[in-house]
Amino acid sequence: MYGLIGKMRASRGQRDAVMDVLRASTGALPGCLSYIIARDPADADAIWVTEVWTDAESHKASLQLPEVQAAIAKARPFIAGFEFQVETHPVGGFGLADGKTG
Amino acid sequence: MYGLIGKMRASRGQRDAVMDVLRASTGALPGCLSYIIARDPADADAIWVTEVWTDAESHKASLQLPEVQAAIAKARPFIAGFEFQVETHPVGGFGLADGKTG
Repeated sequence: MYGLIGKMRASRGQRDAVMDVLRASTGALPGCLSYIIARDPADADAIWVTEVWTDAESHKASLQLPEVQAAIAKARPFIAGFEFQVETHPVGGFGLADGKTG
Repeated sequence: MYGLIGKMRASRGQRDAVMDVLRASTGALPGCLSYIIARDPADADAIWVTEVWTDAESHKASLQLPEVQAAIAKARPFIAGFEFQVETHPVGGFGLADGKTG
């Protein structure tokens, strides 16, 4: 599996707008096992996104999907930048979408 | 919802041992919506754990469960330390265990 943990910064006061776009565009994309969007309670403009995909190729392919391209275009004006991103190799756990747990 | 993103460091060469304990103890704990364990491909002893709980109380209560206490006791000798931890407030997404998505 392929994972991403990232922190993005919305333009001042635009966090809810960015999160609304992210939530609306998040669904059963091919190869997506988990995609969770979270506020940072200690940082008013920060958003954490944690993702799990079957593999890096699925993630890369998702960026070309029309609905994802549309979401990126819609959110971009409200995003100030990306402050942190790490790639991970998830091995299991609980709550992965297709039952690949443990 | 209540989330945690954390990076722990296993003692040199003990990452698989720690991950095995984490995976074995991860199941349908009360209030747990997601608990994903991942290797850091760029850091041989590092483990990322991303968690989503219904609320902070569920997470806190889980630490008192006998199976969780046993896992902590079993993993502790192989853990060198915790390098990063952030609390989050997840708002939605895809892949949360009980269907609280979107």
